[in-house]
Amino acid sequence: MALTNTQVLLKSRPKGWVTEANFDIVQTPVKSPAAGQVLIKNLYLSLDPYMRGRMNDAKSYAAKVELGEVMTGETVGEVIESQNPRFPVGAHVAGRVGWQLYALSDGSDLRKIDAKAAPLSAHLGVVGMPGVTAWIGLLDIGQPKPGETVVVAAASGAVGSVVGQLAKAKGCRAVGIAGGKAKCDYVVNELGFDACVDHKAPNLFERLSAAVPQGIDVYFENVGGEILDMVLRLINPFARIPLCGLISGYNATEPYGVKFIHSLLVNRAKLQGFIVSDHLERWPTALGELAAMVREGKLKYRETIAEGIENAPKAFIGLLKGENFGKQLVKLA
Amino acid sequence: MALTNTQVLLKSRPKGWVTEANFDIVQTPVKSPAAGQVLIKNLYLSLDPYMRGRMNDAKSYAAKVELGEVMTGETVGEVIESQNPRFPVGAHVAGRVGWQLYALSDGSDLRKIDAKAAPLSAHLGVVGMPGVTAWIGLLDIGQPKPGETVVVAAASGAVGSVVGQLAKAKGCRAVGIAGGKAKCDYVVNELGFDACVDHKAPNLFERLSAAVPQGIDVYFENVGGEILDMVLRLINPFARIPLCGLISGYNATEPYGVKFIHSLLVNRAKLQGFIVSDHLERWPTALGELAAMVREGKLKYRETIAEGIENAPKAFIGLLKGENFGKQLVKLA
Repeated sequence: MALTNTQVLLKSRPKGWVTEANFDIVQTPVKSPAAGQVLIKNLYLSLDPYMRGRMNDAKSYAAKVELGEVMTGETVGEVIESQNPRFPVGAHVAGRVGWQLYALSDGSDLRKIDAKAAPLSAHLGVVGMPGVTAWIGLLDIGQPKPGETVVVAAASGAVGSVVGQLAKAKGCRAVGIAGGKAKCDYVVNELGFDACVDHKAPNLFERLSAAVPQGIDVYFENVGGEILDMVLRLINPFARIPLCGLISGYNATEPYGVKFIHSLLVNRAKLQGFIVSDHLERWPTALGELAAMVREGKLKYRETIAEGIENAPKAFIGLLKGENFGKQLVKLA
Repeated sequence: MALTNTQVLLKSRPKGWVTEANFDIVQTPVKSPAAGQVLIKNLYLSLDPYMRGRMNDAKSYAAKVELGEVMTGETVGEVIESQNPRFPVGAHVAGRVGWQLYALSDGSDLRKIDAKAAPLSAHLGVVGMPGVTAWIGLLDIGQPKPGETVVVAAASGAVGSVVGQLAKAKGCRAVGIAGGKAKCDYVVNELGFDACVDHKAPNLFERLSAAVPQGIDVYFENVGGEILDMVLRLINPFARIPLCGLISGYNATEPYGVKFIHSLLVNRAKLQGFIVSDHLERWPTALGELAAMVREGKLKYRETIAEGIENAPKAFIGLLKGENFGKQLVKLA
């Protein structure tokens, strides 16, 4: 049976906001795996803010996507042909194999997933890369102590929602920042944060201040821009700021100038960038703990699922604008 | 013999640049020490950039100076009356006793200094608070490895000059940034830095780039502002930025907006504020190593010495403008 692949390629680099015209959707024949390779049928594609950086022609922590290349991204899928004994036919795998229906892999970038431990899609969220990102950033860099206040922006998102629930599990006060009343209500009522501040409503600084009466000890940074400046005015001595993302600036043509750097000095605070793929040795521990929390009902999550690979560009643009609610996925089959 | 003290008080808080009108110089009678106290005759006063922050009516890591209070500052002096057996008459001491000719102290903020280990004035510089600041910031936070590139601004100053010489001792490439050709020549020819970039000459970014062909691994931050942004564009993955001071902004009425925070993310870099007085447990080790380097001729320094306490305000204003060359002191007796 000759299979046909559908792939989303990077057609042009965005200037400012991404548009659907930056992508090409093409059909190509599917090849059989060579020695050592497997052929994966992808079931879900994960859409994540970091992908915006890969679309730029700029130095970053990972290679940019070249024009005409398949967009980079993680999927979960099923092995349908195998020349690699580590991944037999029928195995479920997660890996960064790109925005496409079928993919060949030599296995070096795949991890086997246990479809019984959590729903398949969750391996792209709470028990996948976003969950591990939250875990490493909050616990290894943020090092929250019981009674401290942890603030996270994009609090209803794939990473932020895990940050706040981990903070609660560590005995901290968890305060979210999210866009709109519905997301804030979800963060407090469903995820169990102590408070959530709507960044689309007026007087954000005053409301954020009121939500952190003891100041801020850990700020898990996903957004940057004006919110970072507000947080810097509220941090406590020896605060830690794991720097995970700066989504507010990803589509800006002029960078925002951060004015309260001086607060890092007077508070002897730490602002530290990190990338989850630098810490592969921490993944097994993190995934084990996250899966246990899901099983015990201590780690809840929500997903926004687009249908069909042809809708991936539109869903990705929505993600960058905060239109998703929880983890953004694309169902491929 | 009734002694008369001369004290420099904070008269008003500066708006923008400090002026001499912000200070009051007064004569007061000297009291005898009570039980547990010593009376110190100050010999040298240290002038340091951090004092600018104490003049503001703002939250900081240390209490601000109140209006009408003696300006805060470290001195070296001699005990001339003692009711405290730890500090007998004739002992030399360093301590934060303020801008004045005589001071009473209960000894809790004093350390005995060895006038034979280094000249008295050096205990306010390379083997004093500025030297320990350089040592802790560079070694504990910056953690330079042989072959790495260390950049420091205000490179001819009390802290910067020690940072570069310590970096050389650790096998690093040391690159300074300083104001004017004379300071740059001194930094390279006398202190042994590999290069120095004059921030008063045009095309600073291009010249800084050329001076760090392997990028920047450690940036010891004394100045902030545009230079921080230039450095952020040149840092390597996993760079460390000990944040010691931000002198370029101390007299600004509007804070500079730092635009390249994104570089901390993509390079997984760390920007960390610190204050030398948080790390008292490191002082003995640091002072021991610094004194040994001075004895071995591996740690050179220069001083600018104003004469007489009445010239302290003028000398302090000059320090904030970079008019000093090396450690700024006031000779009091």
